Amino acid sequence: MKIAFNTWAYSSFPVWVPAYPLDYVVPTLAGIGYDGIELGAASPHAYPDFTSAQRRREIRQLFEHNNIALVSMLPAPGGGPGFNVASPIPEERAGAIEQYKKVVTLCAELGGKIVIYVAGWQVFGTTREQAWGWSRAALEDVARSAETNGITICIEPTSADSNLVDSADDALKLQSEVSAPNIKLMFDTYHTIYRNEVATDYVHRFGKDLVHIHLADSNRLPPGEGTGSFPTLIGTLKKTGFEGYLTMEIGFNRRDVDPDAFAKRAYDYIKDLL
Amino acid sequence: MKIAFNTWAYSSFPVWVPAYPLDYVVPTLAGIGYDGIELGAASPHAYPDFTSAQRRREIRQLFEHNNIALVSMLPAPGGGPGFNVASPIPEERAGAIEQYKKVVTLCAELGGKIVIYVAGWQVFGTTREQAWGWSRAALEDVARSAETNGITICIEPTSADSNLVDSADDALKLQSEVSAPNIKLMFDTYHTIYRNEVATDYVHRFGKDLVHIHLADSNRLPPGEGTGSFPTLIGTLKKTGFEGYLTMEIGFNRRDVDPDAFAKRAYDYIKDLL
Amino acid sequence: MKIAFNTWAYSSFPVWVPAYPLDYVVPTLAGIGYDGIELGAASPHAYPDFTSAQRRREIRQLFEHNNIALVSMLPAPGGGPGFNVASPIPEERAGAIEQYKKVVTLCAELGGKIVIYVAGWQVFGTTREQAWGWSRAALEDVARSAETNGITICIEPTSADSNLVDSADDALKLQSEVSAPNIKLMFDTYHTIYRNEVATDYVHRFGKDLVHIHLADSNRLPPGEGTGSFPTLIGTLKKTGFEGYLTMEIGFNRRDVDPDAFAKRAYDYIKDLL
Amino acid sequence: MKIAFNTWAYSSFPVWVPAYPLDYVVPTLAGIGYDGIELGAASPHAYPDFTSAQRRREIRQLFEHNNIALVSMLPAPGGGPGFNVASPIPEERAGAIEQYKKVVTLCAELGGKIVIYVAGWQVFGTTREQAWGWSRAALEDVARSAETNGITICIEPTSADSNLVDSADDALKLQSEVSAPNIKLMFDTYHTIYRNEVATDYVHRFGKDLVHIHLADSNRLPPGEGTGSFPTLIGTLKKTGFEGYLTMEIGFNRRDVDPDAFAKRAYDYIKDLL
Repeated sequence: MKIAFNTWAYSSFPVWVPAYPLDYVVPTLAGIGYDGIELGAASPHAYPDFTSAQRRREIRQLFEHNNIALVSMLPAPGGGPGFNVASPIPEERAGAIEQYKKVVTLCAELGGKIVIYVAGWQVFGTTREQAWGWSRAALEDVARSAETNGITICIEPTSADSNLVDSADDALKLQSEVSAPNIKLMFDTYHTIYRNEVATDYVHRFGKDLVHIHLADSNRLPPGEGTGSFPTLIGTLKKTGFEGYLTMEIGFNRRDVDPDAFAKRAYDYIKDLL
Repeated sequence: MKIAFNTWAYSSFPVWVPAYPLDYVVPTLAGIGYDGIELGAASPHAYPDFTSAQRRREIRQLFEHNNIALVSMLPAPGGGPGFNVASPIPEERAGAIEQYKKVVTLCAELGGKIVIYVAGWQVFGTTREQAWGWSRAALEDVARSAETNGITICIEPTSADSNLVDSADDALKLQSEVSAPNIKLMFDTYHTIYRNEVATDYVHRFGKDLVHIHLADSNRLPPGEGTGSFPTLIGTLKKTGFEGYLTMEIGFNRRDVDPDAFAKRAYDYIKDLL
Repeated sequence: MKIAFNTWAYSSFPVWVPAYPLDYVVPTLAGIGYDGIELGAASPHAYPDFTSAQRRREIRQLFEHNNIALVSMLPAPGGGPGFNVASPIPEERAGAIEQYKKVVTLCAELGGKIVIYVAGWQVFGTTREQAWGWSRAALEDVARSAETNGITICIEPTSADSNLVDSADDALKLQSEVSAPNIKLMFDTYHTIYRNEVATDYVHRFGKDLVHIHLADSNRLPPGEGTGSFPTLIGTLKKTGFEGYLTMEIGFNRRDVDPDAFAKRAYDYIKDLL
Repeated sequence: MKIAFNTWAYSSFPVWVPAYPLDYVVPTLAGIGYDGIELGAASPHAYPDFTSAQRRREIRQLFEHNNIALVSMLPAPGGGPGFNVASPIPEERAGAIEQYKKVVTLCAELGGKIVIYVAGWQVFGTTREQAWGWSRAALEDVARSAETNGITICIEPTSADSNLVDSADDALKLQSEVSAPNIKLMFDTYHTIYRNEVATDYVHRFGKDLVHIHLADSNRLPPGEGTGSFPTLIGTLKKTGFEGYLTMEIGFNRRDVDPDAFAKRAYDYIKDLL
């Protein structure tokens, strides 16, 4: 198992500050010992429309020079554009699909392999059937585009933030309804803690389709500093032979966080369990 | 003094749910008794790129049929695109200015009069002088465009979220450096509480240039439910003859909020003080 | 709208003490002013197997003499027998269906009109499809039996305790899949608070099929003493013309509760809002 | 001294989820290193009425194949049926005695040696003398039936949950009033902590009749994670030569528990003290 760090805590998503350029972030994480980075498609790092061809080359070199892998990318849902694939507004749905495709392309250009799929959420007045149908159609479209780019799409249940794909079952159902070989699954311990679920259940349920994991303790704290229980999860992953990245997605939900400190503490705690 | 309600709590900014369409929001707020609405440029309400000409007509009619004023609009900073006018990334700065202009146009089309200006924030590695210069240049550009649309630009200090225009002095300085008659000032009690400042100071400092106010208690609670002190502020505003809208900008920072309940409690509390 | 009180807090479900006989409970609740009682099928009140024909007559008379209605009954899921209609154990499923039928018969004999349906939960190793299928089959069976007894079955989403019917959508889906005219819907504010949902959403979503409501604040406190927001909910119910019982289901999750005190405070708070 | 784990945390008693079948639970606990298992007579594990002859054979084989002992069983008091041997309702008392006998038979069939006796609780309106008399009579009846099955009955004081046998003295008195050689004693550190008692007192008071122990920290946490003090207790047990099982009865009182994690942490902590 390898360890990665997600860049939200260093970006303007969703809290504006602190914000650091990738030129600072990449060597810092490599210096701590991280094997990989999960890059959020947000300013000031990698919002596709604001990332020129020249800048894309620079970012790719940043990863290479620091000998650290780009593991995955994910869009930044919510905020102004929403990018809700299940929105009742047709323009927003089309914009969200287009954004996913831009992220897929960018990810491929930067050398990444995985793009995370957030299935959207029901707006008041939309039925679950409508929202689900829109989300499924978007996934189908995005997965096709990803396939031509050699990118795997990972469905992530996000119970703490959404109301559509909130459980292991929801993710399995969505995957099964779209027949595309490059749709896989992941989970985030912050969301399993939020739902008072047992994280190892997801390991057993997803089986070989589990290709990515987000680690975070309650309140997006570094693992081991909240109410979560990580030694059992790591033990189970060892037994099942998980080969993906344990990716810290922490510290981005409030301003009073030192991202370097969070990155260091999270790394040390998990490294020790491996 | 009139009372307005900001739509964030009903939108996907920054938390994704709950989210309600404007077709629900506008009559609900009118029904509570609000005189006006502040419309955030976020999904699923009014993100410019996702709001068609037809939908703009519908929204305008929604306001008219419910006999409630569109008071103001504001962009949704942060998130994926950032829209940080002080970003070190030229594409992001250009995109942010363009976004402001789209919001100005949309506001005018919908019958609004004010667009709020968030001056951006310093990313690590940027000096205050650079960031300030970029923000001032953006304001100049936006204000000119607003003038042709009959829109007033209000500078809002946002100390809780940013690190550039965080005080009354910062706002006054920025206003003074750009000579445009349609640049005015506002403040938000949530931010004055965050900085442990006295809200009435802003009333006295801004004088006749104070044309808009955001009301929120600590933690974005309805006024009267946190640590803030509102009777004194309202008393001072009565004396100085403030004629703008007291606009509730509350309940949007966490998921477990019933926006209708917040809107009702905030209205009842402030109405009682007037 | 009428007000009722659920008897768990006076029973041995799930905490063993305090426990009071119905001979104490019924006149006490009538004395406070309650219009109705929701009777849990638990000891020492009304576990069907332990409630003789003679005792059933006495309980019916207790209601009549105290001029208070029996509104509804519900089984006591969990504990030793489980009574999980979605259990992987065939004997437990059969036992759960039988128990529901016994509760339906008892409810009819005592003069009640509603039996609440808890859709069960997935045990590890069971797929959602299996669990859902078993729960639907059980509901079909129970609803048919209820129809001959003139009893309405109300599906209750129970997100805080279960993992199968946890949302308004789940309840709507289950109802739609079983065509029986006597299957209706309800919700519990404790569960909507647990999921950080807006309770009035359920009112709008369920429409005319909403025939029963459980009121409880966070941590099963009396309404108004936790983090919930009840004035908006009551206001919405007034507008939509809800004619069922607002039923307090509170104070049963811990030992250190005085049921009389909880019953009185809950009644006073809600009565005042009506 | 050997170490065992009680199955509540994996069952639907009293909280419904998480729930795992024994086919998962038994190998998992054996894998951690546990010497034995205490099996609660609750769904989905071993509720007697729902456990067929075929299933009983399978469960016995599960224990044998995993080379782990069935140490003890206990009924699931409270919930719907109550199973309160001191209930004022004759049908409930008879049902509780019958349930104990079913658990005794099941325990013997599965190869266990101990059934735990919870003496019931006083319902409002019942005197202590009445409740005590009913409980004593039930114990007499159950102990006779247990003797023919080669089962020892252990009286457990349960001060946190009941109001009848709450102390070492209550247990000694009840034992002395029923002359049956197979009635022995046990205690649970969760209950001694609840009463602010010193656990080693029970070791000294019960002497050779102490044949079983429940370990749990405050709030049913794994030993060492709450306010309890376990090194002293283990030290005393070493001196007195206790030969029974230290049985973890933890993590079953709330949903947000990973039973595997609790089982592992409890085992490691106590093993280290032995």
